[in-house]
Amino acid sequence: MRALTYDGKTATVSDVPKPELAQDSALVRVTVAGVCNTDRELVKGYMSFRGILGHEFVGVVEEGPEEWRGERVVGEINFACESCPICYEGLQRHCPSRRVMGILEADGSFAEYVNVPIANLHTVPPSVSDDIAVFAEPLAAAYEVLEQVHVMPNQECVVLGDGKLGLLVAQVLRQAGAQVLVVGHHEKNLEILARRDIQTVQEQHWNPGLYSLVVDATGSIGGLRMALAATRPRGTVVLKSTTATKAKLDLSTLVVNEIRVVGSRCGPFPPALRALETGSIDVSSLITHRTSLANCDEALRRAGDAGQLKVLVDAQ
Amino acid sequence: MRALTYDGKTATVSDVPKPELAQDSALVRVTVAGVCNTDRELVKGYMSFRGILGHEFVGVVEEGPEEWRGERVVGEINFACESCPICYEGLQRHCPSRRVMGILEADGSFAEYVNVPIANLHTVPPSVSDDIAVFAEPLAAAYEVLEQVHVMPNQECVVLGDGKLGLLVAQVLRQAGAQVLVVGHHEKNLEILARRDIQTVQEQHWNPGLYSLVVDATGSIGGLRMALAATRPRGTVVLKSTTATKAKLDLSTLVVNEIRVVGSRCGPFPPALRALETGSIDVSSLITHRTSLANCDEALRRAGDAGQLKVLVDAQ
Repeated sequence: MRALTYDGKTATVSDVPKPELAQDSALVRVTVAGVCNTDRELVKGYMSFRGILGHEFVGVVEEGPEEWRGERVVGEINFACESCPICYEGLQRHCPSRRVMGILEADGSFAEYVNVPIANLHTVPPSVSDDIAVFAEPLAAAYEVLEQVHVMPNQECVVLGDGKLGLLVAQVLRQAGAQVLVVGHHEKNLEILARRDIQTVQEQHWNPGLYSLVVDATGSIGGLRMALAATRPRGTVVLKSTTATKAKLDLSTLVVNEIRVVGSRCGPFPPALRALETGSIDVSSLITHRTSLANCDEALRRAGDAGQLKVLVDAQ
Repeated sequence: MRALTYDGKTATVSDVPKPELAQDSALVRVTVAGVCNTDRELVKGYMSFRGILGHEFVGVVEEGPEEWRGERVVGEINFACESCPICYEGLQRHCPSRRVMGILEADGSFAEYVNVPIANLHTVPPSVSDDIAVFAEPLAAAYEVLEQVHVMPNQECVVLGDGKLGLLVAQVLRQAGAQVLVVGHHEKNLEILARRDIQTVQEQHWNPGLYSLVVDATGSIGGLRMALAATRPRGTVVLKSTTATKAKLDLSTLVVNEIRVVGSRCGPFPPALRALETGSIDVSSLITHRTSLANCDEALRRAGDAGQLKVLVDAQ
């Protein structure tokens, strides 16, 4: 089958053997896959990943248990052992021996086929198109904020960053009743939010107040610094950027103002799928480019271009 | 009167004018004052403070409202405006226009007399001696952890650091029912805890597991790094070190393991005074040295010596 493989140096589309059905898994024929910023970090060396990239997908189960065959599915990306204390607590996304699709010791979805553990599958509602369903994974990551932090209706929140994740987090917070202000750089992206009744401001015109909740979705360490400065005493910063690695930080603001910084990663699929079904979160406006699996290496590069949000890959 | 003043270069004991009674305040005749690590940071330039140092004290009200005159008191160190939205929320310790005794724009207690706002005073129970009462402020800072984080009975907690604050935090957590392990360097300090049924380990013999709550009371940035590595997914790190200023940090652990880092500073006096009254927290073992106000500059230097915990200053 065709797949985008990263060998530690370059990401190349080539023919590789079609995977055999793995234990307790379904072999999914991928229909559409999405490019995530994490994919771009991986090819810079993040996680030292080697193998088939990709972790946002929708597809149809081709092999596996009878009740799943022919089902149109999306899949959670953390493959847990399901038998350790962390898994028994329901924290499978944090299983210490997890593999992660296209990120850690598991092949990903920029391929014609991908193995996904049965426990990770979710059926896509019939009314949700493939192009919309492929947003289940990033939208789940946005819902993760609500799982970690008690967001109150009418709470004044700030989202720093108007990239893909910022746009999703802002909509999720708005839907939870919060008053959301998004601080960004890209007029077009901010317009998507304005249409959803979300306040926006260009960073250079922002006069930061102090907020009880600030989500850093900038993907840069400058974002955390900016977030700490805009957070009121005893307030919360949600840190969404996995790209933020080593950075020099003055932590005295955090201590003196008794700020809570909450790291945030993958989230729950069911609320994401429900929101995609009702259309309460606008994801289609985020699609800026699509290409074929044959051009997937180019898609990865394009995804970093100015003006790009979600780049989709037709996998068949 | 005699006082220890910092002029931006050196801390010197000298004769200065006795302060006049300030508005809404009591003029307290200081009996005993305590040296805190923050005092040592201040004379290194922290907060750019100029004036009389000292913020841990016990004394007797000499001038002020009739109902307070003659009362033996301790005092909260954050002098709030009591009329801004933050104060109305009960967060006076975070008042944006606060002055802080001996730390920010307010003279401190290494002096024969100090002005303290009436709102900040607490009467010392008769059975609590001056040497014990002077621990109200640092013990309140230890109780702050319980105000910020839900500590569950039997929860396995780690306290990093066996200095003054580490010893107090460990005892407060133990008293709340938690199973506490203190990781330290100083055999004598760890022995104080062992007498209180608190598990201890020398850092070089520690084989870190993963804990749901880790308190960094090391006063060094290495402590936060160690804390993040010892915190389980979705666990909490309480950061107690105001000395931890700029530091290079790898935040990917925080994001990937979805850790909460909570900055923590001053705390509530009433539970501290109650604990001092019942003797449920051992503070007297922490007193390692005492001196007179005339030698207070020397006391500040001595407080940093190996083996020293709390250095007390007789102010009269």
